Amino acid sequence: MTGTVHLVGAGPGAADLLTLRAARLLRMADIVFHDALVPDDILSLAERARHVRVGKRCGAHSARQEDINGLLIAAAQEHETVVRLKGGDPMLFGRAQEEIDALRSAGIDVQVVPGITAAFGATSSLLQSLTERGLSRSVVFLTPRTGRGAVACDWARPAATADTAVLYMAGRDATAVTAALLLAGVPASRPCVVVESATLPGERAWPTPLHGLARTCARIGDGPALVLMGDVYADCLAAADRTLERQQFA
Amino acid sequence: MTGTVHLVGAGPGAADLLTLRAARLLRMADIVFHDALVPDDILSLAERARHVRVGKRCGAHSARQEDINGLLIAAAQEHETVVRLKGGDPMLFGRAQEEIDALRSAGIDVQVVPGITAAFGATSSLLQSLTERGLSRSVVFLTPRTGRGAVACDWARPAATADTAVLYMAGRDATAVTAALLLAGVPASRPCVVVESATLPGERAWPTPLHGLARTCARIGDGPALVLMGDVYADCLAAADRTLERQQFA
Repeated sequence: MTGTVHLVGAGPGAADLLTLRAARLLRMADIVFHDALVPDDILSLAERARHVRVGKRCGAHSARQEDINGLLIAAAQEHETVVRLKGGDPMLFGRAQEEIDALRSAGIDVQVVPGITAAFGATSSLLQSLTERGLSRSVVFLTPRTGRGAVACDWARPAATADTAVLYMAGRDATAVTAALLLAGVPASRPCVVVESATLPGERAWPTPLHGLARTCARIGDGPALVLMGDVYADCLAAADRTLERQQFA
Repeated sequence: MTGTVHLVGAGPGAADLLTLRAARLLRMADIVFHDALVPDDILSLAERARHVRVGKRCGAHSARQEDINGLLIAAAQEHETVVRLKGGDPMLFGRAQEEIDALRSAGIDVQVVPGITAAFGATSSLLQSLTERGLSRSVVFLTPRTGRGAVACDWARPAATADTAVLYMAGRDATAVTAALLLAGVPASRPCVVVESATLPGERAWPTPLHGLARTCARIGDGPALVLMGDVYADCLAAADRTLERQQFA
């Protein structure tokens, strides 16, 4: 008898943004395989489980995907409840499909528990909706990073056509990212907000027009960062400008 | 002293896909204003609260947005913990900004609690990731519906440029939606999956190529429906075709 592998979304960071189902599975789990970015207070819910860190972080591959697949298959042959815990939602930039396909090929039952992806966490803190009547009816989530960590050129077109765009893993290559966006036709004045460590105590947000994105991204610290872009952020940008003016004339 | 209004995401439907934070706020709430689509087992968490249904459903406007704003302001002047419960995530197709702006203008504290939007619920049930190495690095969420319930023509371009697209509130206008997508350059063979009542007991999923979308959407029942589209769904479509073949030759 083999167990079930649950691919579980750990959410954006704050422990209470986990779903009730995810919390219950963590408490039941026999073994938990987790990414580097999952905070300790979420992991600590899995009291009776063995914890195995397999996560990658910003291109620093601490375990190869094939090795992770093998570990999950072996764990399901030994345990009833195996949890594979991934930051955000497993099905968005989480390489979930490779794990699902490997597990199903091995005849192992797989379940997926969705999680709050970072974009929604950042958005709730900013109090600025991703969509807005008359301003935005489409939101694209994308990443300029390819498998090998490089920035290719063809990713920017959806960011130029959607009303609101959220760029994952874009902060470290902000110069190349800005160039690709401008080339795809995004106006240099398009309002952006860079958010670091969304929903965590160290959360920070910097509004900037697109032409200032690289300079702004240089201020990102150690936390995971997102770039939000679109006319819905015009008010955020205007408020930041007013604050700056007040500081300059104080 | 005025209270705080919490715009809370109720998630895609299943009660245990609520976040821990949302569940805690519902238990604390003095009054809950909710959409028509929020299931009873989620509402029942708000045991001590007065429940007020203000929701709109499929264009049947049961309360005007300005009236809802007024109700929320009045409630915050009377109660400490006011919850505005919205299906999915409040910041995606939830008209959250109108409520946030009205509340802040009235000097009332607003907090937003993110929720799992239907796309992630449907995706986890299908066991098919929205992104996949070499196949999809961008996902757009959009709606063809305008404020007045009509289908305009300019919404389809992001669906044609992003690798994966999720269409909200598109099932009832599937013929016009298909025409707009084809006109925007989406191939007629692009794999789609129509999902009704994601994460709920009555959940159903029908894979179809884009050219069969209108015929497929005619099968949607009373539940909320989503259209997922992109090459990542090629395997879902192939599996459905194999099942159909087996049925025809049985």
